[in-house]
Amino acid sequence: MSRFIKRSTKKAGTAPGTLVHVGDRKMDHTRISLMDYDQDHLTERELESIEASFPFKDAPRVTWINVIGLHDIGLLEKIGHHFGIHPLVLEDIVHTGQRPKFEDFDDYLYTVFKMLTYDSQTGHVRSEQVSLIIGKNFVISYQESEGDSFDPVRERIRKGKGKIRKSGCGYLTYALIDAIVDHYYAILEILGDKIETLEKLLIEEPKTIILEEIHTLKREMIFFRKQVWPVREMLNGLIKSESPILHESTTLYFSDVHDHVIQIMDIIESLKDVLSSMLDLYLSTVSNRMNEVMRVLTIIATIFIPLTFLAGIYGMNFEYMPELKWRGGYFALLGVMIAAGATMAFFFRKKKWL
Amino acid sequence: MSRFIKRSTKKAGTAPGTLVHVGDRKMDHTRISLMDYDQDHLTERELESIEASFPFKDAPRVTWINVIGLHDIGLLEKIGHHFGIHPLVLEDIVHTGQRPKFEDFDDYLYTVFKMLTYDSQTGHVRSEQVSLIIGKNFVISYQESEGDSFDPVRERIRKGKGKIRKSGCGYLTYALIDAIVDHYYAILEILGDKIETLEKLLIEEPKTIILEEIHTLKREMIFFRKQVWPVREMLNGLIKSESPILHESTTLYFSDVHDHVIQIMDIIESLKDVLSSMLDLYLSTVSNRMNEVMRVLTIIATIFIPLTFLAGIYGMNFEYMPELKWRGGYFALLGVMIAAGATMAFFFRKKKWL
Amino acid sequence: MSRFIKRSTKKAGTAPGTLVHVGDRKMDHTRISLMDYDQDHLTERELESIEASFPFKDAPRVTWINVIGLHDIGLLEKIGHHFGIHPLVLEDIVHTGQRPKFEDFDDYLYTVFKMLTYDSQTGHVRSEQVSLIIGKNFVISYQESEGDSFDPVRERIRKGKGKIRKSGCGYLTYALIDAIVDHYYAILEILGDKIETLEKLLIEEPKTIILEEIHTLKREMIFFRKQVWPVREMLNGLIKSESPILHESTTLYFSDVHDHVIQIMDIIESLKDVLSSMLDLYLSTVSNRMNEVMRVLTIIATIFIPLTFLAGIYGMNFEYMPELKWRGGYFALLGVMIAAGATMAFFFRKKKWL
Amino acid sequence: MSRFIKRSTKKAGTAPGTLVHVGDRKMDHTRISLMDYDQDHLTERELESIEASFPFKDAPRVTWINVIGLHDIGLLEKIGHHFGIHPLVLEDIVHTGQRPKFEDFDDYLYTVFKMLTYDSQTGHVRSEQVSLIIGKNFVISYQESEGDSFDPVRERIRKGKGKIRKSGCGYLTYALIDAIVDHYYAILEILGDKIETLEKLLIEEPKTIILEEIHTLKREMIFFRKQVWPVREMLNGLIKSESPILHESTTLYFSDVHDHVIQIMDIIESLKDVLSSMLDLYLSTVSNRMNEVMRVLTIIATIFIPLTFLAGIYGMNFEYMPELKWRGGYFALLGVMIAAGATMAFFFRKKKWL
Amino acid sequence: MSRFIKRSTKKAGTAPGTLVHVGDRKMDHTRISLMDYDQDHLTERELESIEASFPFKDAPRVTWINVIGLHDIGLLEKIGHHFGIHPLVLEDIVHTGQRPKFEDFDDYLYTVFKMLTYDSQTGHVRSEQVSLIIGKNFVISYQESEGDSFDPVRERIRKGKGKIRKSGCGYLTYALIDAIVDHYYAILEILGDKIETLEKLLIEEPKTIILEEIHTLKREMIFFRKQVWPVREMLNGLIKSESPILHESTTLYFSDVHDHVIQIMDIIESLKDVLSSMLDLYLSTVSNRMNEVMRVLTIIATIFIPLTFLAGIYGMNFEYMPELKWRGGYFALLGVMIAAGATMAFFFRKKKWL
Repeated sequence: MSRFIKRSTKKAGTAPGTLVHVGDRKMDHTRISLMDYDQDHLTERELESIEASFPFKDAPRVTWINVIGLHDIGLLEKIGHHFGIHPLVLEDIVHTGQRPKFEDFDDYLYTVFKMLTYDSQTGHVRSEQVSLIIGKNFVISYQESEGDSFDPVRERIRKGKGKIRKSGCGYLTYALIDAIVDHYYAILEILGDKIETLEKLLIEEPKTIILEEIHTLKREMIFFRKQVWPVREMLNGLIKSESPILHESTTLYFSDVHDHVIQIMDIIESLKDVLSSMLDLYLSTVSNRMNEVMRVLTIIATIFIPLTFLAGIYGMNFEYMPELKWRGGYFALLGVMIAAGATMAFFFRKKKWL
Repeated sequence: MSRFIKRSTKKAGTAPGTLVHVGDRKMDHTRISLMDYDQDHLTERELESIEASFPFKDAPRVTWINVIGLHDIGLLEKIGHHFGIHPLVLEDIVHTGQRPKFEDFDDYLYTVFKMLTYDSQTGHVRSEQVSLIIGKNFVISYQESEGDSFDPVRERIRKGKGKIRKSGCGYLTYALIDAIVDHYYAILEILGDKIETLEKLLIEEPKTIILEEIHTLKREMIFFRKQVWPVREMLNGLIKSESPILHESTTLYFSDVHDHVIQIMDIIESLKDVLSSMLDLYLSTVSNRMNEVMRVLTIIATIFIPLTFLAGIYGMNFEYMPELKWRGGYFALLGVMIAAGATMAFFFRKKKWL
Repeated sequence: MSRFIKRSTKKAGTAPGTLVHVGDRKMDHTRISLMDYDQDHLTERELESIEASFPFKDAPRVTWINVIGLHDIGLLEKIGHHFGIHPLVLEDIVHTGQRPKFEDFDDYLYTVFKMLTYDSQTGHVRSEQVSLIIGKNFVISYQESEGDSFDPVRERIRKGKGKIRKSGCGYLTYALIDAIVDHYYAILEILGDKIETLEKLLIEEPKTIILEEIHTLKREMIFFRKQVWPVREMLNGLIKSESPILHESTTLYFSDVHDHVIQIMDIIESLKDVLSSMLDLYLSTVSNRMNEVMRVLTIIATIFIPLTFLAGIYGMNFEYMPELKWRGGYFALLGVMIAAGATMAFFFRKKKWL
Repeated sequence: MSRFIKRSTKKAGTAPGTLVHVGDRKMDHTRISLMDYDQDHLTERELESIEASFPFKDAPRVTWINVIGLHDIGLLEKIGHHFGIHPLVLEDIVHTGQRPKFEDFDDYLYTVFKMLTYDSQTGHVRSEQVSLIIGKNFVISYQESEGDSFDPVRERIRKGKGKIRKSGCGYLTYALIDAIVDHYYAILEILGDKIETLEKLLIEEPKTIILEEIHTLKREMIFFRKQVWPVREMLNGLIKSESPILHESTTLYFSDVHDHVIQIMDIIESLKDVLSSMLDLYLSTVSNRMNEVMRVLTIIATIFIPLTFLAGIYGMNFEYMPELKWRGGYFALLGVMIAAGATMAFFFRKKKWL
Repeated sequence: MSRFIKRSTKKAGTAPGTLVHVGDRKMDHTRISLMDYDQDHLTERELESIEASFPFKDAPRVTWINVIGLHDIGLLEKIGHHFGIHPLVLEDIVHTGQRPKFEDFDDYLYTVFKMLTYDSQTGHVRSEQVSLIIGKNFVISYQESEGDSFDPVRERIRKGKGKIRKSGCGYLTYALIDAIVDHYYAILEILGDKIETLEKLLIEEPKTIILEEIHTLKREMIFFRKQVWPVREMLNGLIKSESPILHESTTLYFSDVHDHVIQIMDIIESLKDVLSSMLDLYLSTVSNRMNEVMRVLTIIATIFIPLTFLAGIYGMNFEYMPELKWRGGYFALLGVMIAAGATMAFFFRKKKWL
């Protein structure tokens, strides 16, 4: 359950604002990459040290600084100092168990949410914390490890596709959040496909493994919902924000993402309902099959037990048992047995037990 | 589950505003039909190209352009350009996984929702996206494939029945939405009839197939609710809209549709509750019948097993078994057996086990 | 389920405002009765035609016109025309699947809700639509068939009991709604008594029929709730209405009915919870009894099967079986059998299985 | 279920404001007691007739009139007339099925709620309606029968403990409501203790009776919640009331009771959850034990049935059965049987079935 | 369930404001410790009597008085008198069953909530009531027993770490609440780990003990939620408070704790859902295994019972049974038996019963 409660006891009891990285260390080195662009120019660099990014801070172009890896506390403090970030924000960035939220600090905006990936080997949805600090003309993004959903955004910046090169920090923020939310759909599709496969399997041949798979999928849905649910509020914050950092024109874009997130919540709830209904179906089907088997077997036993009793009667060794002397006794008894068995079988069938 | 998550991964990562048709291609050719009317005149045409509709744009009559088929991106872009539609709206039109919503863009209104049909062969509720762009004196409707719920509206326009020819774009919008919501009732009735049939069957003779049917109906209900739920908000948007495009007098009509949608939600919830109660009843009935069968069979076995044991005793070959020599031993034992069996049967009956 | 979805497909696709009676035709002839009263005078008449009521429209006394039977479209249109009723309202009156609601049309108020009756033969709660049009000094009530909950109101008008003869249309409206809501209690009591009887039966002797009765009661509760739930909103509308047609003094009365409706919702929820708990109890009790039976029977079989095996051993015909020759062999074996059986019985009892 | 729906059909159809006592007649005579006090004086009397209380009405001291027994309609009407109470309020007082509520009539305040007692014999929570009419310097309380939770309040008035003698009608109202809400805790504790006892019993030895007790407790919880739930709103009304009858300083006291009621709701919900979890545990435990028993018994039967078959083989009377002639045949077969039985037992144990 | 309902009947009926300690007496002596600090100075003392703290009340530095043990009513009254605390607040402090809440008394703020600890021996979450009285420059904290989550705060004050020595009473309040909420995470982690261990165990080998553990964990979750749920409101009160006692700058800090509490609620709900899903999985798995066992055993019995019947036939002692005379009769019968058994086994396997 460590995915569910990602707030280490390391933290408990330290002073607020103390920077301690909470979470698994997923990277050896912290990587910093920078894109600086306006409609006509684009600078893209891999930075050796964070200081190299400082000159871009007050330049008129949009500067996107992407920091990968959170364990380098010194680096964070330098950024915090140079860009004037509140200590509580820096603390939130390194404690990877934040609830998605949006906060307005006048000089800059802070938003944190989760990048989700699906680990097909374990069947787990993995969550990685992404923080954005949005200033007048810079966006700093923090993520825990390499491999992200941002590549399409980079591509669009490089090729100047769409509005991105013509717009400011607000639009870049939107593009980054949208890229991540779009990836939520991809994961939902994987989970949805799994459910569909399971549903077919369920009707064809109910196996025990299905139970565990339903449980696993339910747990992932619970985890997924827990990650996505607060994103609504975060986006509401962005939509309602009257910060001059965001242009008014971005409201429409954030509303669009907000719609997507609400739809994702709808889908999750629907899929959870379908899973519950599948569990019911599975349990009932298994129970029905079992009942059928038991009924048939029990009927066979029930027919033969009285007959065996009859045979047992005439297997007794009493000296005086008149039937034993009758010439046709044996055949008569066989006839009685066949008749009794047939009567019982007929009776059971009439009662629809067989 | 692809019905539930209709947002293809094709989309993920493209720039917002990029037109890529997401969904199954349901038509070969895009069909465009046009109705242009006021109280006295009516022009109805099948258009070869979208350009043919442009002259109607600024004419004083109400123009309804119906576009069937969404894969022709070029056509959409032309419409978008000529009528001044925001790229995000065009994107929403071609991505057929939109959540029903209403948006006001001052010059025009945009609303998207689902036309539902019932596929009696698969037992699935199918959903098709319908988008409306409502301008000063034109309404453009987009749908995915031929065959729609709009025919009665066309008929009313042709025959000039009711208020439709005397009213403007707002009323046409209402008529189109109302036609679709009325069709929701038709589907609900089909599902309701299926539930009623199932309920009768259930009480008469519970069969395994009922389980799967209950599951199927539940899943369709979940799907139905997911489609209809956000329509409430969409209609609320229309009711509260103060756009000059809609006359104030239409508010009452939209409220009427809103009432219907709320009632549909009520019915769906009620039917879902009834289905749950039916599942309980089914499972309990099956389990009861099974129990009854097992009890009777087990009792038969239980009576005969001790008797068989008795017969086994006197079937032993010990040299010295005094009872075997008794003349009446056999009949005495038979009497004992009958007495024992009757006692047991009496006891079981007294305990209400039989 | 037709009770749940009372909106016929006949309707789908007709123009709004088209009067088509939707529902079962419950009457052969439409009956119109009229009461016209003030503190001192009372006129009560059975009308042949609706025109006979027109002179009362503008008279200063309170006029209550009660129309029984909805299929006579012509009559409705006459009323609509003479009293100036909006076509959508007339449409709502004849479509008997309306959701309870209140609407203010300045000149008159419109409210629609359900009269419920309990059909003791089928065990169904039946719902009949009642519409009220409340004008300055007239109230028109529409109902589907004869037999209603209004008799006490008529009696009070005739005898001049209470405030009714001294008050206006608002108070009459209240009296009519109150009479119907009071009848809801009567039905709830019948259902509540059924539940109580069932609960006693359940503890005394759980029978299969109880299951179906619980299901039936649940379904009726779901239906009941569906009918009553929106009445709250309707009454809220009446309470908050600032229409001059209603005197301010009636607000208190409508609040009183509103309290009753909320309490009815509370009771329905409580009874539904009790029913769910009863189902749990029933299923568990049945399962427990069954388990007990099976355990006892299985134990009897389990004791005798090994003993039968022992008897089988000494029933074998091997030529050399020394025990058979022993003089006391038979009795020794009987002793062993008794000991073995007793040991097993003792063991099972010790394990609390018997 | 008559506890749940305490609105008799006697009422249905009578004019509003008609006083008919609805509920069981719990008293033979109506008792009226009076306390009249200020900081220095205290008059306490048992009144013969209500008229004796009228002189106290306009006296400057606080007068508390406690009426026990509701069936004396004449008395109520006298009170109503003298103190100027609205007919609907008098009606509410005698109809003992009111939902707790608060109403402000300018001259006086009206509040109605439930006094709960636990009947340890039937295990039922009993509810008795208490109405308070709070005037400028009098409080009239109505209750159904003798025996109440007000004794501590009387004691405090007599002894002048706390603030009560120094405060006005608002504080007395608070003291009365607080006394009743405090008694809710006492009942919750009794129910809580029962649950705890049951939980221990459940783990030690699950018996059938536990099922019924869980059902009973659940039903009482449902009843309890139904009674307490609307008290929140009633207290909210008192807190937000700006009536001059209540001093502002009492708001704090009513908030305190409000907190208690919310906490009681929290506890009820928690206990209901615990009960549900206990039912799950009970059912699973019983089912597990049963399964264990059945498995062991079935295994014994399964081992002996094939062995009995073997014995049956050699009990056949064929003339030519070579094994029967073998000298060691019998012992060899015994060996085979022991080996077969041991093999099966070993196999079952290996499979963890035994 | 006494943990759930911690309001003793001792209390019922006493006057409000009467100080009676309700709860277990967890301490022999009441301990009072004091910290008085500003940025440059720190006084830390263990006080013999509360009077020793009075001089610090009006000193400009921040004074934190920590009272451990609530049974010394006299001491509380002295504090109440000297610091001017409302009697209802004192009452709340000693009644350890308070719902977490925040109240503003102008001169001071009062907040009460729960310190939770996990008792690993009983597996219970224990709750201890903590009350804070926050004045202009003093904070008085009350707790029931020694051992608390405040040590890290003391450490920070002593070492002057972070902002604490530079800030006022508001920040100290925040630090104390934050320390307790941080400890909630620690407990959640313990419970989460238990769930994870249980989940692994569940899939490997479902044992009966798991049931009880799931029940225990559920009950603790219910208890946990009941304690934490109202903390949200309490923090909201602090955030929205405009009291001059709290600096505006602390709002951000309280919001941070509020976020943590909401996240804790999210986690609790998720874990509860996971537990429910685990219970489903457990029950289904057990039922499946049991079914499998029963099926195999029943099949074995079913195969051998008819064969035993056959053997029984030829064990009868009729004088005329021709088959017995046939030379190959025995072997023929053995062949028939083997064939019959094999046929049945083949049939069962084909039906997938074996």
